[in-house]
Amino acid sequence: MKSVAIMTSGGDAAGMNPAIKCAVEYSIQKGLRPYLVYDGLKGLIDGNIHAASVIDTADIIHRGGTILRSSRSKRFFDYEYRKQAYEHLQRLGVESLIVIGGDGSFAALQQFYKDFKVPFAGIPATIDNDIPCTDYCLGVDTALNVIRQSVDSIRDTGQSFSRAFVIEVMGRDCGYLAMASALACSADICIAPELPYDLDAIGERLRKRRVAGERYFSAVVAEGTGMGEYLTRWMSDTLNMDARLTTLGHVQRGGSPTVRDRVMANEFAVAAVDSLLAGHKDHICVYNYGNWGYKTIDEVKSSKAKLGANLLSLCQGLSK
Amino acid sequence: MKSVAIMTSGGDAAGMNPAIKCAVEYSIQKGLRPYLVYDGLKGLIDGNIHAASVIDTADIIHRGGTILRSSRSKRFFDYEYRKQAYEHLQRLGVESLIVIGGDGSFAALQQFYKDFKVPFAGIPATIDNDIPCTDYCLGVDTALNVIRQSVDSIRDTGQSFSRAFVIEVMGRDCGYLAMASALACSADICIAPELPYDLDAIGERLRKRRVAGERYFSAVVAEGTGMGEYLTRWMSDTLNMDARLTTLGHVQRGGSPTVRDRVMANEFAVAAVDSLLAGHKDHICVYNYGNWGYKTIDEVKSSKAKLGANLLSLCQGLSK
Amino acid sequence: MKSVAIMTSGGDAAGMNPAIKCAVEYSIQKGLRPYLVYDGLKGLIDGNIHAASVIDTADIIHRGGTILRSSRSKRFFDYEYRKQAYEHLQRLGVESLIVIGGDGSFAALQQFYKDFKVPFAGIPATIDNDIPCTDYCLGVDTALNVIRQSVDSIRDTGQSFSRAFVIEVMGRDCGYLAMASALACSADICIAPELPYDLDAIGERLRKRRVAGERYFSAVVAEGTGMGEYLTRWMSDTLNMDARLTTLGHVQRGGSPTVRDRVMANEFAVAAVDSLLAGHKDHICVYNYGNWGYKTIDEVKSSKAKLGANLLSLCQGLSK
Amino acid sequence: MKSVAIMTSGGDAAGMNPAIKCAVEYSIQKGLRPYLVYDGLKGLIDGNIHAASVIDTADIIHRGGTILRSSRSKRFFDYEYRKQAYEHLQRLGVESLIVIGGDGSFAALQQFYKDFKVPFAGIPATIDNDIPCTDYCLGVDTALNVIRQSVDSIRDTGQSFSRAFVIEVMGRDCGYLAMASALACSADICIAPELPYDLDAIGERLRKRRVAGERYFSAVVAEGTGMGEYLTRWMSDTLNMDARLTTLGHVQRGGSPTVRDRVMANEFAVAAVDSLLAGHKDHICVYNYGNWGYKTIDEVKSSKAKLGANLLSLCQGLSK
Repeated sequence: MKSVAIMTSGGDAAGMNPAIKCAVEYSIQKGLRPYLVYDGLKGLIDGNIHAASVIDTADIIHRGGTILRSSRSKRFFDYEYRKQAYEHLQRLGVESLIVIGGDGSFAALQQFYKDFKVPFAGIPATIDNDIPCTDYCLGVDTALNVIRQSVDSIRDTGQSFSRAFVIEVMGRDCGYLAMASALACSADICIAPELPYDLDAIGERLRKRRVAGERYFSAVVAEGTGMGEYLTRWMSDTLNMDARLTTLGHVQRGGSPTVRDRVMANEFAVAAVDSLLAGHKDHICVYNYGNWGYKTIDEVKSSKAKLGANLLSLCQGLSK
Repeated sequence: MKSVAIMTSGGDAAGMNPAIKCAVEYSIQKGLRPYLVYDGLKGLIDGNIHAASVIDTADIIHRGGTILRSSRSKRFFDYEYRKQAYEHLQRLGVESLIVIGGDGSFAALQQFYKDFKVPFAGIPATIDNDIPCTDYCLGVDTALNVIRQSVDSIRDTGQSFSRAFVIEVMGRDCGYLAMASALACSADICIAPELPYDLDAIGERLRKRRVAGERYFSAVVAEGTGMGEYLTRWMSDTLNMDARLTTLGHVQRGGSPTVRDRVMANEFAVAAVDSLLAGHKDHICVYNYGNWGYKTIDEVKSSKAKLGANLLSLCQGLSK
Repeated sequence: MKSVAIMTSGGDAAGMNPAIKCAVEYSIQKGLRPYLVYDGLKGLIDGNIHAASVIDTADIIHRGGTILRSSRSKRFFDYEYRKQAYEHLQRLGVESLIVIGGDGSFAALQQFYKDFKVPFAGIPATIDNDIPCTDYCLGVDTALNVIRQSVDSIRDTGQSFSRAFVIEVMGRDCGYLAMASALACSADICIAPELPYDLDAIGERLRKRRVAGERYFSAVVAEGTGMGEYLTRWMSDTLNMDARLTTLGHVQRGGSPTVRDRVMANEFAVAAVDSLLAGHKDHICVYNYGNWGYKTIDEVKSSKAKLGANLLSLCQGLSK
Repeated sequence: MKSVAIMTSGGDAAGMNPAIKCAVEYSIQKGLRPYLVYDGLKGLIDGNIHAASVIDTADIIHRGGTILRSSRSKRFFDYEYRKQAYEHLQRLGVESLIVIGGDGSFAALQQFYKDFKVPFAGIPATIDNDIPCTDYCLGVDTALNVIRQSVDSIRDTGQSFSRAFVIEVMGRDCGYLAMASALACSADICIAPELPYDLDAIGERLRKRRVAGERYFSAVVAEGTGMGEYLTRWMSDTLNMDARLTTLGHVQRGGSPTVRDRVMANEFAVAAVDSLLAGHKDHICVYNYGNWGYKTIDEVKSSKAKLGANLLSLCQGLSK
């Protein structure tokens, strides 16, 4: 194998840029010619693929988002378009792919591998931290720190005004962001898919503290639970105080990557290049209990994302 | 006059804490005994008023919100409660008040002055920058910088994903926040009460740039216009691209005060103490074209907040 | 006049990028062809000058430094090299210049105007805020907020450990940064060129507070006074506590521009283009008491930078 | 065991406050009476020990430093003073201690345990990340992100001005901070105690890139190597460009704790209380490869801090 093309796909996440940069540099160090695919699967189909040098990625380590841009592409489900993508790669002499993205993107690349035998390595990147088989997905730490700054900021006004605040964070089926940020920001309530909640118990707990003189309460809610507005009204009624909902939205996706995301990006990029050099065909780089490893896309697809036992345990008290 | 009580009232704003701190210190320097009123008008009625020393405010200059807390109080409209407040002040020997807040709070204190001849000085503080007769209200610069960080952050993801973003910022009748942040973040559209807009012209302008290859568009909308959701759909339809709405909400009120808000807080606090020492009874400290002055509450009430001509002119191109 | 070239020169400052962006856009709006000069005076001599479109500056408003880079050039003192620069401009049809920088750069451009009649407009930009005739220089607000974050951060550790801290900030002959940040961060001592100090009085003032139980003291020193190390030892001896010096250094020059610097950059850029269109030949855009105006470079050179009376007065108590 | 006193000791680090908060709350949850020791070992000797409620620690999770303050105390080496400390604990009925600090503090508490049989649990906290037997010490992630912001900020000016920058970060015998931040900020050189360096090779590597047109170089140096000034001159001479040294200093210790430090603080605090409840007498909570465990202070003292193999490997290229 002499060449590798690097692409980002799916929802963007901080840490993609440092991963791109390190993948380019480490490829060169290992004797591979690096290429960059712009616009994700769309760019693969349309041939938006260019040879890369270290200059192209020299000044991106501190930038949020992805300079390669991303996209969702229905055309890639269609064999004809995949074939077109393959022909672009062949014409350029690109022999392998590194894709930074989510499990949907990995599945697309697996099909591509089955069709045309172009091996790939996957780097899990999503702020939801919900890709099975890995404890960490690129972008999570940055998203959490963006949330923290917002929640700390809201605390200022909540305390000044004796108000309750509900903060809705991203997370469709996975409550990782909600739980970690509730813990980090010392929220009084956390509503997440993995946490059974008992509003009666919560109400009793907080009313006691309200009577004891506490003036500020906060809740963090995973958007996937759909509980934001309901909980806001419930807090207003139950605690008899002004309650407000803030939906953090897309702010959570951006921001300069934190050190953790930059260091993990380095490690993921090295693991991905090494995976291809080791002859893996469709492996995802995973990080578990401080150790690096690989899983096939089939193993990933047949697993379920799991929250750490410690996090679940630390958050128990917030949902009852 | 030998004593002054300092209070915050109305919606909270960054800069209140430095203003409290400086008012305490400068009062002492001028031979006055300072007091702190907790919980705004409510605390005035309930006698939550305490003698202050520099120790009480030693470590607050960098904190958002207000350590004195704020409140809205309907009871204060009632003479009996105002009398009760007056009796608390008399008992403690408090002879004057400094109120950091908005024009509603100033009007309440004016009635209090008419009733009981307790003079006050007002420090305009609101992130909306909509108090008449002054170019600057405490808290505006911090709010703008919080908005800037969010919009810069959203830009990361917008550019990565070829998306349009609409960001709704605070501002009921005043578009200052929307216009200044649209300018500072280089938004493509700004919708504010003071700016007549022409969606057809905007559509034509942006479609040209879309055709020329631009991938990211952003709009800043003042919440008072109620245009957030409509504009988001409009951008989606008109530019034929994915468009998302983010409502920044209460995040805008918090955060550690910027240098500008801290320096202005110092200047406002000095002006307020000087106003009382000069014998003014119901004056608001105002800042216009770099000069400090005073206006009576009647002058403030009979005026309308005006945006600077430069800001209006710089934003003209964003609404058509 | 049909064309204008924009350049940055001298020490870099936040706000240069937004000024470049706005100068390009406003030039086009006014019917001028904009050019960009890279590498300052050096680039002018070497002909590193390129026609600009809005695309070139589309994504720079939030970046620190200057995408045009800057330099110091001794060659520009030499007529032959200035002539070479002129020939480059002539060849490209560039008829005027906007230079964003300090008074040294303005003087260089004035000589260039005398030689070849190429008019220019100057935008004062330096974090020292020491250019005469204007209350504000681009970059100052961002530098102050970077300093604030560092000093707030040092406070955390100072209070935890009962320590005195001396923080040295930039400022050769001008104490603006030191005074404004001392005020904003509630320092106990400020040493700046404009402030006569009395160490005996300071010692007496702080020893009293030390006896009363205060555990943390901080001083801000302008580097031009050369007092950093001496004051650190003095605090250690006089207050009998551990004292440390932190020199902030080049961190102060960088960082994403604040809203104030971005808005001022817009206004300065408009003023500069308007100056050239109005037929001014060698004018500097100035901002005084909220009003925009122009001064010739001779007026600027024959004036002295002055600190505002309010700032001086608010800082009096910090040097005695 | 019915009661536990919590204290901080040694150099302060972000994350101490969340650890204090969580230790108080989790103690109560487990049926213990919590106490707080102010001023570290000094406060233990002087009896500055107070019963704690959740109110005392309600608003500290986001603050840098330690509300309990810290100190270094030579008196604690003296049996008489340790006895005095013991009598204070006995009088209050305090039966165990949690100390958040470094190995020096742990050793002091071990002697205290040998003397008076007061068991303790240690939480490793230091920004140097140099306590043996644990992969992570509280405060490291926050320090790294503070460094990152400074280095990113310096990059702005370095690139604008074609300059080389040397940034000196904390770390006496341990290069963790230097290496992780060099990696995260994409420095060109890293000088750390654990990395043998070859200046000739570095010079050759960078001169090539200089010739190829690169304008900015940066180096991160661990202060313990004493190489800051030398390397700055060396870069200036070798690369023939302006080079500057910035020593980050105490800024690195402060700042609001990151999410990682807050979550780790929660986990460490739970582990410490659990250690005491399990009957451990002198154990340190450690975190290795994602797993929590305990080591006796003797095991810690007889081990050496080790850098992760991955970090060492990723940084190899930066010192030659």
